[in-house]
Amino acid sequence: MERRTPPRTKEGWYILHDFRTVDWDAWRAAPDHVRERALEEGRAFLADCEAVDDAEDGDSAMFAMLGHETDLLFMHIRPTMADVEQVGRRFDQTAFAEFTERADSYVSVAEVSDYVTEAYFEEDEEVENAGLKRYLDQKLYPQIPDAEYVNFYPMEKRRQPEFNWYDLPFDQRSEHMSSHGDIGRSYGGKVSQITAGSIGFDDYEWSVSLFANDPANIKNLLAEMRFDPSTSKYAEFGRFYVGCRFDPHDLEAYMAG
Amino acid sequence: MERRTPPRTKEGWYILHDFRTVDWDAWRAAPDHVRERALEEGRAFLADCEAVDDAEDGDSAMFAMLGHETDLLFMHIRPTMADVEQVGRRFDQTAFAEFTERADSYVSVAEVSDYVTEAYFEEDEEVENAGLKRYLDQKLYPQIPDAEYVNFYPMEKRRQPEFNWYDLPFDQRSEHMSSHGDIGRSYGGKVSQITAGSIGFDDYEWSVSLFANDPANIKNLLAEMRFDPSTSKYAEFGRFYVGCRFDPHDLEAYMAG
Amino acid sequence: MERRTPPRTKEGWYILHDFRTVDWDAWRAAPDHVRERALEEGRAFLADCEAVDDAEDGDSAMFAMLGHETDLLFMHIRPTMADVEQVGRRFDQTAFAEFTERADSYVSVAEVSDYVTEAYFEEDEEVENAGLKRYLDQKLYPQIPDAEYVNFYPMEKRRQPEFNWYDLPFDQRSEHMSSHGDIGRSYGGKVSQITAGSIGFDDYEWSVSLFANDPANIKNLLAEMRFDPSTSKYAEFGRFYVGCRFDPHDLEAYMAG
Amino acid sequence: MERRTPPRTKEGWYILHDFRTVDWDAWRAAPDHVRERALEEGRAFLADCEAVDDAEDGDSAMFAMLGHETDLLFMHIRPTMADVEQVGRRFDQTAFAEFTERADSYVSVAEVSDYVTEAYFEEDEEVENAGLKRYLDQKLYPQIPDAEYVNFYPMEKRRQPEFNWYDLPFDQRSEHMSSHGDIGRSYGGKVSQITAGSIGFDDYEWSVSLFANDPANIKNLLAEMRFDPSTSKYAEFGRFYVGCRFDPHDLEAYMAG
Amino acid sequence: MERRTPPRTKEGWYILHDFRTVDWDAWRAAPDHVRERALEEGRAFLADCEAVDDAEDGDSAMFAMLGHETDLLFMHIRPTMADVEQVGRRFDQTAFAEFTERADSYVSVAEVSDYVTEAYFEEDEEVENAGLKRYLDQKLYPQIPDAEYVNFYPMEKRRQPEFNWYDLPFDQRSEHMSSHGDIGRSYGGKVSQITAGSIGFDDYEWSVSLFANDPANIKNLLAEMRFDPSTSKYAEFGRFYVGCRFDPHDLEAYMAG
Repeated sequence: MERRTPPRTKEGWYILHDFRTVDWDAWRAAPDHVRERALEEGRAFLADCEAVDDAEDGDSAMFAMLGHETDLLFMHIRPTMADVEQVGRRFDQTAFAEFTERADSYVSVAEVSDYVTEAYFEEDEEVENAGLKRYLDQKLYPQIPDAEYVNFYPMEKRRQPEFNWYDLPFDQRSEHMSSHGDIGRSYGGKVSQITAGSIGFDDYEWSVSLFANDPANIKNLLAEMRFDPSTSKYAEFGRFYVGCRFDPHDLEAYMAG
Repeated sequence: MERRTPPRTKEGWYILHDFRTVDWDAWRAAPDHVRERALEEGRAFLADCEAVDDAEDGDSAMFAMLGHETDLLFMHIRPTMADVEQVGRRFDQTAFAEFTERADSYVSVAEVSDYVTEAYFEEDEEVENAGLKRYLDQKLYPQIPDAEYVNFYPMEKRRQPEFNWYDLPFDQRSEHMSSHGDIGRSYGGKVSQITAGSIGFDDYEWSVSLFANDPANIKNLLAEMRFDPSTSKYAEFGRFYVGCRFDPHDLEAYMAG
Repeated sequence: MERRTPPRTKEGWYILHDFRTVDWDAWRAAPDHVRERALEEGRAFLADCEAVDDAEDGDSAMFAMLGHETDLLFMHIRPTMADVEQVGRRFDQTAFAEFTERADSYVSVAEVSDYVTEAYFEEDEEVENAGLKRYLDQKLYPQIPDAEYVNFYPMEKRRQPEFNWYDLPFDQRSEHMSSHGDIGRSYGGKVSQITAGSIGFDDYEWSVSLFANDPANIKNLLAEMRFDPSTSKYAEFGRFYVGCRFDPHDLEAYMAG
Repeated sequence: MERRTPPRTKEGWYILHDFRTVDWDAWRAAPDHVRERALEEGRAFLADCEAVDDAEDGDSAMFAMLGHETDLLFMHIRPTMADVEQVGRRFDQTAFAEFTERADSYVSVAEVSDYVTEAYFEEDEEVENAGLKRYLDQKLYPQIPDAEYVNFYPMEKRRQPEFNWYDLPFDQRSEHMSSHGDIGRSYGGKVSQITAGSIGFDDYEWSVSLFANDPANIKNLLAEMRFDPSTSKYAEFGRFYVGCRFDPHDLEAYMAG
Repeated sequence: MERRTPPRTKEGWYILHDFRTVDWDAWRAAPDHVRERALEEGRAFLADCEAVDDAEDGDSAMFAMLGHETDLLFMHIRPTMADVEQVGRRFDQTAFAEFTERADSYVSVAEVSDYVTEAYFEEDEEVENAGLKRYLDQKLYPQIPDAEYVNFYPMEKRRQPEFNWYDLPFDQRSEHMSSHGDIGRSYGGKVSQITAGSIGFDDYEWSVSLFANDPANIKNLLAEMRFDPSTSKYAEFGRFYVGCRFDPHDLEAYMAG
């Protein structure tokens, strides 16, 4: 009945993935002036989100989604959980929201752990190395990468008799995380990611968002990871989404097909 | 085919977690006088709940939820199961209920067991120690802590060939519970909890509600517990919710985005 | 590839658990004369059911439910499956049905087996012992106990490599059933039950309905059973419901909150 | 990595199980002339189906269902898959369809295999034995038995480490099928069945439809089979339905409660 | 903690399976001129899709589906993921879309791997052999075969303690894939297929679409594969669909029953 050593973590900004379907029947049936007002309010809300007018800092982006009968993803990153709760709710005040339904969502917080950045935690929370500090800041206060495609999935580690991540000694977990990270790094320049913790906030333990200009790179990165023991033996996945980024000013073009 | 010794328990107040979505389309479309009456009736109901006007004793609180396409959580604690059945139903009589849909719910009862408070059960249900009595009363007749964030999840213990909680001897279970409780106590002052039994009342065996001013503490407490064998080997979780407390008088501000 | 001896069973009356949600929005919006007619037809239907006007024999009862977003349970016991099919359908003819939606249901038949009442089956279906006959009649032709609270859940026995009920010799199963029954009997006077078979009729193998004036007794009975090997190793449960009995004449009070 | 010998099969007619709920609210609200037209078109469609006016051969039957919030089952047997696709779609053209919603469905094809009728396949597809030919024809071109009650469930064989049907040698599978069939035959005269393959057509591997005048016989047959290793170790079941047959001309009586 | 060698892959065109239900109630109720415009726009959209007017290359086809309460499948193959995102969305702009609801969908990309075509990858992406090049082109840039029936299912490989595809050495996986392919080839001329990767794009790892003039061949091919270890031990399947191809010009006949 040995209790394993948990990783130490530091938390940064909170993230809301807000998935919506479009009510295309209502959209086709709406008179022009209703559509125009909806587009105007939708565009203004999304542009305000990208400009982070609603909070001290953060980032937001919009995506046209495929699959899962979902049309839109609004991804919001903000300093506090109360911030992301409110930005999600503010969208529902717009005339554009009438043409959407909530389809899915995910709540998580950007974090770093001492699996891979032990120095950070050992040195009394003082990061002297400037390169490390920049790396940690990117992890804790992420900006959404400028890429054509997005992928999202929630995941967790197994707690099974043969494959029990939470019963592995710290060193083995750290080694797994490092090997896992090597694969990610080998896709540097092709795929970038925002990973965030969600234990207690949503149904899985982490959310992963990948960004790439070629979606095949996303597939190949994840396929390669699947052969690494940290995944082949210890990972459990939720649903997988994929989509194409679009600018708030292209909302009208999006709605026109 | 040995039958294991069950814990002895004592039950206190009943708890209803009542999750709702807001029908924002209807809200935006409603004329002012309809909204005003809805807000008035909603505020009055929620304030009456907090004041426990409907029963001899108890507590209630309201939360703005994130994730799971759920907007509101009404948490009601009352002396009897009939009390919580009625308070849940009374909300549906208000004009505000028209702008909500039921999204989820959970029924449980506050309890203490002799896993950790054996003395209580040994001494013929007489608790002479004043400190112990206060502790037990807080467990059996809980008041909702005054904190900014709430977390809710249902859970149960596994009955699998390798990890069978219900086939462990009492002493081992008691040791697990004690080790598990140590982690909780190490977050004293940062996270407080209301735990309640639900075997026969709802689909899991317990409900857990955590309260904290910093949601990262909720995540870290639950992550740390995940490395304890009582969780890594014996726990199965349901869905996880998180939300922000709000005062009944802020219902109008909430609905305004 | 040994085939195990199945229990011999005798079947009695058929049981329909008919779960409904109330459409409170429609109810609040309905004019008084529509509500009055709905209440009148609802009350009349439910009173007719309790009086078993629609069949040769049986019993019916109504409950205000908590949890699972379900409001009402109509429990109907009748001599044939065609009887319960029709009584369920007849409700949908009433004006009250307009204010409800079907939420769940369960179909089963009261049965006795020779796990515990071997004598019954050995003696050429002749039961000479008057006490035994009364016991069997209560099992086969159950009347709904007069208690304040109801609990319902479907269950089945596992067919897994390590825990395979259907691969146990008859004697071991019989011993399990007897040990399981001992726990139930120890709650005599506090909790009574109606257990019915549903293999081929619905998704689980049995339905269990428990009745008690104190719901904590239902929880404690089921928790105690969970430590018995017949449950800890061999039982798989469906959803759990709990509710409060009410009289057809209190339908108006129920609908008024 | 040995590949096991699959059974040889011969396919006959295609089967569609088309499950519907009735929209009772719409039915109660409909004016008399709308109801009359709906009943007329519904009766005509169902009578045409029973008479197999839409294809070269086959059979159809209607059932009043219990449980699963489903009201009606239309079972259609036709020579080709295109036939059953069209007969399902033709119902939706009737005015009666407006008062129903699709609730579930299942697609399968009647088949015989050489697990139990090897001779058939050995002799160059020539069946000399007249009794065997009649048996095979009944299996391949089934007529719906004239019985009061129907049961339906989909099923499949397990592919697990300990219980892997698809890794058993042909002889063992054949022995299992034969033992399984013995139980079925012991209910001859009391329960008859239509079993059909659905690999690639629907989510399970077979559909089973049982017919009996006493539903207790259906339960007891399936319970007995559950103790046979072919089921206790190798079967996985989907949902179970039960219902009562009715004549197209009784559609009005059915809709009247 | 050995990391296994992943296959090298090359990606071709993207594929969207877009499943729809028909709203038959709305269709029956619609006035003639509304139906006519819907049919006209639906036919034009589908004919444009088949003619691939919306992208540089690709293919599209329409199917009348059975089962899963789904009526239509639109299968679109296009050079980029953005192409298939847009073609799916363009359908929702047509007046015909008003009579459909999205029921399911699947996103994947045609790919070849070096499990079976190692030469391709060894020779610096130069394919000298003309026959191999034609084979690879058919895999990467598939045209939808001209056959009466379609089958669709998503699948993935297991990552379990005993059956862990992702922990097998490359050679064993390659051998499995080759044995698996042998079965497929033995159905040459009877069943053709389009297989595509979907890791990171949708919930399973591959999508499979089979095409045949006799649906029994689809069933028998998949049944035979189920006895091959690559399936009996390592495959996990999603839902299975089956349907009949139809020409865009037959849309009116389809809607007329």
